[in-house]
Amino acid sequence: MNRLAAACLAVLIAGPASAADLRAQVNDYRAAHEAAIIGQLDELVRLKSIAADSQGLAATGAYLESQLKTRGFDTASWSVGGSPPIVYGLLKSPGAKRTAIFYAHYDGQPITRAQWSSDPFVPVMRDGLAGKDLGWKAAKPPFNPEWRLFGRGAADDKSAIISFLAAFDALKALHRKPSVNIKVVWEGEEEASSAHLDGILKTHAAELQSDVWLIGDGPVHQSRTPTIYFGARGSLGLDATIYGPLRALHDGHYGNWVPNPAAMAAELITQMRDGEGRIIIPDFADDVRPLTDAERSAIARLPPVEGGLKKEFGIARTEGGESLTASTMRPSINIRGIRSGQVGAEANNAIPVDAVLSVDFRLVPGQTTPGLQDKVEAFLKAKGWTVVRETPDTVTRLAHPRIIKLNWGGGYPALRSDMTSPAAKGVIAAAQSAAGGPIAILPMMGGSVPINTFDELFHVPIIGLPIGNHDNNQHAANENMRLRNLWDGIALYAAMMAQLDW
Amino acid sequence: MNRLAAACLAVLIAGPASAADLRAQVNDYRAAHEAAIIGQLDELVRLKSIAADSQGLAATGAYLESQLKTRGFDTASWSVGGSPPIVYGLLKSPGAKRTAIFYAHYDGQPITRAQWSSDPFVPVMRDGLAGKDLGWKAAKPPFNPEWRLFGRGAADDKSAIISFLAAFDALKALHRKPSVNIKVVWEGEEEASSAHLDGILKTHAAELQSDVWLIGDGPVHQSRTPTIYFGARGSLGLDATIYGPLRALHDGHYGNWVPNPAAMAAELITQMRDGEGRIIIPDFADDVRPLTDAERSAIARLPPVEGGLKKEFGIARTEGGESLTASTMRPSINIRGIRSGQVGAEANNAIPVDAVLSVDFRLVPGQTTPGLQDKVEAFLKAKGWTVVRETPDTVTRLAHPRIIKLNWGGGYPALRSDMTSPAAKGVIAAAQSAAGGPIAILPMMGGSVPINTFDELFHVPIIGLPIGNHDNNQHAANENMRLRNLWDGIALYAAMMAQLDW
Repeated sequence: MNRLAAACLAVLIAGPASAADLRAQVNDYRAAHEAAIIGQLDELVRLKSIAADSQGLAATGAYLESQLKTRGFDTASWSVGGSPPIVYGLLKSPGAKRTAIFYAHYDGQPITRAQWSSDPFVPVMRDGLAGKDLGWKAAKPPFNPEWRLFGRGAADDKSAIISFLAAFDALKALHRKPSVNIKVVWEGEEEASSAHLDGILKTHAAELQSDVWLIGDGPVHQSRTPTIYFGARGSLGLDATIYGPLRALHDGHYGNWVPNPAAMAAELITQMRDGEGRIIIPDFADDVRPLTDAERSAIARLPPVEGGLKKEFGIARTEGGESLTASTMRPSINIRGIRSGQVGAEANNAIPVDAVLSVDFRLVPGQTTPGLQDKVEAFLKAKGWTVVRETPDTVTRLAHPRIIKLNWGGGYPALRSDMTSPAAKGVIAAAQSAAGGPIAILPMMGGSVPINTFDELFHVPIIGLPIGNHDNNQHAANENMRLRNLWDGIALYAAMMAQLDW
Repeated sequence: MNRLAAACLAVLIAGPASAADLRAQVNDYRAAHEAAIIGQLDELVRLKSIAADSQGLAATGAYLESQLKTRGFDTASWSVGGSPPIVYGLLKSPGAKRTAIFYAHYDGQPITRAQWSSDPFVPVMRDGLAGKDLGWKAAKPPFNPEWRLFGRGAADDKSAIISFLAAFDALKALHRKPSVNIKVVWEGEEEASSAHLDGILKTHAAELQSDVWLIGDGPVHQSRTPTIYFGARGSLGLDATIYGPLRALHDGHYGNWVPNPAAMAAELITQMRDGEGRIIIPDFADDVRPLTDAERSAIARLPPVEGGLKKEFGIARTEGGESLTASTMRPSINIRGIRSGQVGAEANNAIPVDAVLSVDFRLVPGQTTPGLQDKVEAFLKAKGWTVVRETPDTVTRLAHPRIIKLNWGGGYPALRSDMTSPAAKGVIAAAQSAAGGPIAILPMMGGSVPINTFDELFHVPIIGLPIGNHDNNQHAANENMRLRNLWDGIALYAAMMAQLDW
């Protein structure tokens, strides 16, 4: 007796399918449709939805709207002044008392073609991260779940959209009625800072009432265990320039006397973070909201990944003495880059004219971007720096011994939703049911997703349902989607549509 | 009565010319020949003597040898395996008991044409550092001494060669017999590390016996006072690479846990030098030979230049709390450059894979290059670094928490000649006589000149007679020679040839 027959028998014997039955049924459906599902992802990746291609973005939006319409959704397409459309869908489920909004983005990061092994918009299947090309269309399913489909957006986030559509199709084939009213918000501008999202959501606030937002973005836990997350750190970029002499000076004749801006930048870095990555800017952590017992205990239950990751990354030590996830619960200062003078064959014996630093702050709940800016600037002033916004003229240089030009980038605060709310409990239960065992429950992702927007506008729980493997090369060349994670995603989304209730 | 007539009258009255007479006579000769002297410098700069042009170097060597021959010198041209010739000259002076060797180099630094305002080998006169072009050939001498002739090598070192030749011509016209036997060593490979100098000097050690080496290289003191120096700091370059993860990692997901190599580099810099530029590597200064009372007192007598230089460089503070020259008597660690990750528009939210540092150590007497390398490597090991010479493989990375690849560049030790030797006193007296007043006496230049070679081979006093203005853009674009400094140089060289004795 195969698993589908067993599942049907279970329905006949026990009435409506249990959670275990649904998992088996969805998995069987998926096993029977692997080639078709990969074909859908392949088709979606071929649609060139990157910021540099506004026509591609519009075409992708139209394609996705038609996909929803075909499946019986009421749909709309929202745009402002030619912005990439937000695809909206609504499918009411008679008798459902809760409404869930499924969010994902269909745009991908820009590409640098030369860094890719193949065309980012012509998907290729390979038998591993550095594997060989496979003619998957001629292969006989079920496919090896370690195979990966390579293409821009294959993981981030088109895998979430395909998981949603395939899960919906599975439930329809299995005659399973959704347990919630389903709304869809698929945006096309996330990788370009979602410039129009907030305005459009406000305009359509009435249509967007719900009981929970489910966010199909971000990577799955490094243990490859199906994952849900309850928040994400915020982010704030900073570019800083530190000034040395007006022209590069002979470091033999003037070294030890003319201040060296590279050394000044080094000193500043070590005044902001210690050798273990801990932030030592005074009062920096004052506003940080501590972890709850539930959050701490969720972190303690995560499968250990540290040993494997150290091997993968080729590092013999880590910073801060905590587990990876515990480390990313704290705010952080990352040096994205530094440039001063010249190195290697181009090095001159000169004191450089400046040092340019690029810093990426990660915020945790309780911290605001203006608050963080204030703390950093107060710290700089206390250390004797004069903060400027424009390149200083000679008069300014002569008046101030330490000048730093700051250019704050865009940013947004962190979010950590309550893991113990009824909605949270419902999502956890559905996800565990889909996984048929323990899942990775992250109080907050280390990386940032601007989900605070949804929280600020709608004040309902925001919970993440990531699909992509952690090693999907997100934002980089050779982005890829591991099949096992796609299959897990379909099971996860099916459970959210068919079993979510509280 | 003009000055020349007055000087002649003085000779008639008082017998052999006094020091003041010689100064006046040489200056009058120069005033009457300014256009011709500039024409000689112009002609020499047009000879393209840079490392990239071996024919130009050979032609310049031949030209200079002919210049000496014309003036009655015995000459030779020494070369090894096609190296740029060392031009040697000898002119014995009957009755002289001392022999002085006049050293200079006729090769110039490489040029980057795009950075120059005009062709580096077609000299242009301007009425200041950022002045307008002048048709000096049509102008009527005496020229404004603030004018500058722009061209590669115009200051470094062709100005020293022209000063020598013009001074010699002046003495001849004035019927002044040299007080010393004169030897000339003009090399063509100084800007390319003098690869063959040591070998050639050893081969010709017999011809190169002397009582003093006079080095026509380096800039004049920033006060623009005529200058002599008794040594120069040594130099040692170091390129270092610090390793982060094997691939750039998302700094949201992995920041605070995966070590950031830019931050590690910053920490290392601050462990080597403090915010005042003081070296804090343990035992670093153990071997440093302290300044003598005479050296300290010479430094104290230097004209103050700090206020003017701070304005010129656009800096409101200096490092170390001492005068410029006192600061450059100490060893130094200069950060020539640092590169890690990306900055500005190219910055990614990533932990960089490495950080590359370029460091320039300046040595003082007592320190050796192997000794300095040992101290730095011992310090690194004590701080937990594993020092490697090649890019580490993954096994090495996984075995060592802090890996630094070191690539030591070429270097040489410092030299500080005795300022109180009879030869030193003789040179000081002649230089003061040429200047008609106080001169700047530097125990050691901050910049490096590989004069230790002469010291090691010949064990005679090594004394510098710099000609170029401090702001001559040495090694950079728009190198220039200020006329006042060239005139001072001619007076200085004339005094060395006609008055030096001890």
